[in-house]
Amino acid sequence: MQSFELDKSDILKIRKALEEDDSALKALVAEYHPSEIAILFEGLPQESRERIISILPAEVASEVISEMDAEFHPEKLLENLHPERRSEIVEELDYDDATDIISQLPEEQQQEILEELDEEDASNIRSLLKYDDDTAGGLMNTQVIKISMKLMKKDALELVIQQSEEMEEFYTINVIDDKNVLRGIVSLKDIIKARNNVRIEEIIKTDFVFVKADTDQEEVARLISQYNLTSIPVVDDNMHLLGRITFDDVIDVMEEENTEDILKISGVSEDEELAGNWKEAVKSRLPWLILNLGTAFLAASVIRYFDSSIARMGILAGYMVMIAGMGGNAATQALAVTVRRISLNDLTDNQAYRTVLKEFTVGLINGASIGFVIFLFAVFYDGNPMLGLVIFVAMTGNLIIAGMAGSSIPLMLKRVGIDPAIASSIIITTFTDVFGFLLLLGLASKLLL
Amino acid sequence: MQSFELDKSDILKIRKALEEDDSALKALVAEYHPSEIAILFEGLPQESRERIISILPAEVASEVISEMDAEFHPEKLLENLHPERRSEIVEELDYDDATDIISQLPEEQQQEILEELDEEDASNIRSLLKYDDDTAGGLMNTQVIKISMKLMKKDALELVIQQSEEMEEFYTINVIDDKNVLRGIVSLKDIIKARNNVRIEEIIKTDFVFVKADTDQEEVARLISQYNLTSIPVVDDNMHLLGRITFDDVIDVMEEENTEDILKISGVSEDEELAGNWKEAVKSRLPWLILNLGTAFLAASVIRYFDSSIARMGILAGYMVMIAGMGGNAATQALAVTVRRISLNDLTDNQAYRTVLKEFTVGLINGASIGFVIFLFAVFYDGNPMLGLVIFVAMTGNLIIAGMAGSSIPLMLKRVGIDPAIASSIIITTFTDVFGFLLLLGLASKLLL
Repeated sequence: MQSFELDKSDILKIRKALEEDDSALKALVAEYHPSEIAILFEGLPQESRERIISILPAEVASEVISEMDAEFHPEKLLENLHPERRSEIVEELDYDDATDIISQLPEEQQQEILEELDEEDASNIRSLLKYDDDTAGGLMNTQVIKISMKLMKKDALELVIQQSEEMEEFYTINVIDDKNVLRGIVSLKDIIKARNNVRIEEIIKTDFVFVKADTDQEEVARLISQYNLTSIPVVDDNMHLLGRITFDDVIDVMEEENTEDILKISGVSEDEELAGNWKEAVKSRLPWLILNLGTAFLAASVIRYFDSSIARMGILAGYMVMIAGMGGNAATQALAVTVRRISLNDLTDNQAYRTVLKEFTVGLINGASIGFVIFLFAVFYDGNPMLGLVIFVAMTGNLIIAGMAGSSIPLMLKRVGIDPAIASSIIITTFTDVFGFLLLLGLASKLLL
Repeated sequence: MQSFELDKSDILKIRKALEEDDSALKALVAEYHPSEIAILFEGLPQESRERIISILPAEVASEVISEMDAEFHPEKLLENLHPERRSEIVEELDYDDATDIISQLPEEQQQEILEELDEEDASNIRSLLKYDDDTAGGLMNTQVIKISMKLMKKDALELVIQQSEEMEEFYTINVIDDKNVLRGIVSLKDIIKARNNVRIEEIIKTDFVFVKADTDQEEVARLISQYNLTSIPVVDDNMHLLGRITFDDVIDVMEEENTEDILKISGVSEDEELAGNWKEAVKSRLPWLILNLGTAFLAASVIRYFDSSIARMGILAGYMVMIAGMGGNAATQALAVTVRRISLNDLTDNQAYRTVLKEFTVGLINGASIGFVIFLFAVFYDGNPMLGLVIFVAMTGNLIIAGMAGSSIPLMLKRVGIDPAIASSIIITTFTDVFGFLLLLGLASKLLL
């Protein structure tokens, strides 16, 4: 039974082979798919990666490099290669992958590599380097299958086969007119099924989905996912075909965007590399903690204002912590649900109002339920029903605020064009802390002391 | 310029047409792609959805229903349809989609619908209903292209075209032997390129990726993403071909799994429907808040233990809130990064130890930095350097604990086979609250009072 799961034993085998000579190592790595080698690389030091790349056939080496996660810096593998070997590997890469990897190198090295390549490859990669990383232009591959709409079936089929020689895989055949304007798409199946005397323009689909080079990658992912496309053409303002983006690029984009969402909502900068070292982590997280410190001073100043109340009634401090903790958690819950709905495009404008109303209701019920439990505790353990009542009201009020802040703040950010996930728990909990303390301590001062 | 974005005006147009007669409504909805109608449905009440489904051609109605997000309950649209119309629509559905939708109905209605269908459709759907929703069997479509390895090129091509008549799209051709055992795969392109006297077995790829019917859907998604597959065959224990799963199903799975991750990490039950009503939200979130209440009592009991210290030094209460807030946020940061790495299969065993070590370092540096700011405040605002020192030590210690708990708890859960995302911020912050208060109040009692 075949298994497609790598485990520790694979890494250990490779490590062992690394201590032996090249032929043993060569034989071992030949057992793995390039995408598996890319994953195994994550557990190996840079020198070992370089050694393995050096003994692989150029077309395998290029596949490994293109499959490596950007976090593990595939570009570093190119730096120390012999120029000849390097251009061999880069020429095997798809243009979009080559561009992604080269763009990570310093300008000087980029030029060096481009000069080593043949004319055509270099100019293709140069033109792709112009586009922003996170746009359709930055994602697209310029190798496409394209045929003229005037071709007869037989010639079209031949041309498609010929163009596909150099491509690993293709999904959609682009049909252009004599001005290179994209007029439609057709599938290989439809060409084969057509009668022999059919001209391509008779069987093309003219109602198709496409994107511009400057379309944001999230929008590209949304279209591919919504219309279940294997690939989507990229065009310029005059509908000239520039390239194509395939579903597998979009799967990577989706994973990237989801990582960003989960990090931002947790108060981590979206560009922290998951596998980065502690320096990068500090750089990414400390600014958020300092922002949080500012808001914590705000909450603390509320407490300082009621200083004497706390001194006169020490048990209030414990209840304060409960109010703050529950408020923060309830706000995070509402935030997660709302941010995820916005990410999935799952909210129309008229549902925004209903969402906040729903979170109000949820806060009211959850707050009253939790508040009631604490009320009972205050009555039976502390023997102070009035204190129980104060806490009940403060908890209910705080969880209502939590639900409303957790849902309305990301919705408002979205409305003004700011990424809603930035309304991280750090910002939202300021509201619940400040408001919760004001309610609890304010009521306690008035009613209990 | 074509736009693929729906907005409020589309909903308003549909609402207006709903007030007019069928022909106006029919003309309007004909302008939209089925997947767009599915999205517009999200903003319409059930009666309007039913009316639109009733006037659409059966093949469009079935596409709309299959494109609807499960959250918006496409199965409800089948309930009130005339049996004849209903079987017409269900027969247009792919078997996997039909199964997903029918499985949401009560047993009795499932049988009713299955009895209306023709023999073949009913038996296909019945066999799919046996599989768990979140396994390969539950995801797969039983409509596949399969040819015998003994066929010559021309016969193979004819058979593929013939089999593909009923399928919207296909990507991989499955090649079987005479015992129906899957022996390899081949692409349409490779068949066309082959010479005429070639037998299929000469051009198949025998080294291909497949899954069993009981493989978890997350594993299916991982394989499709890792190997960039458009579709993956599903087999039984004897390598008999059962069906196929396509990349678009996997995109849906990825979105679902990402939603679950982001919800769980925020203390929301993974099965809360994002668009659900307040009752479902309370049911999903209140248990987590009650769990949190338990841990809050724990933190509060630490505070109660130091009751008299707080009464004697009221300003401690404000600093307590800072310690708890910063600790909770730092723990959430470490948690998000670690859970995401585990989700992306981005961690080998020997990196686990290094991850915790990294988070220790990050906690130390961030804790000391934040602690130093508060130290300055205590010195210059409260005029109490000793208090500043106590807070500095407590903050540093608390952020170290936050980093270590946030990274090691999900890693340990993963090791024992529990979903790491369940180590939500609610659980992690217990550690930081209890430990932070113990440090701050314990040190303060010993050194300041």
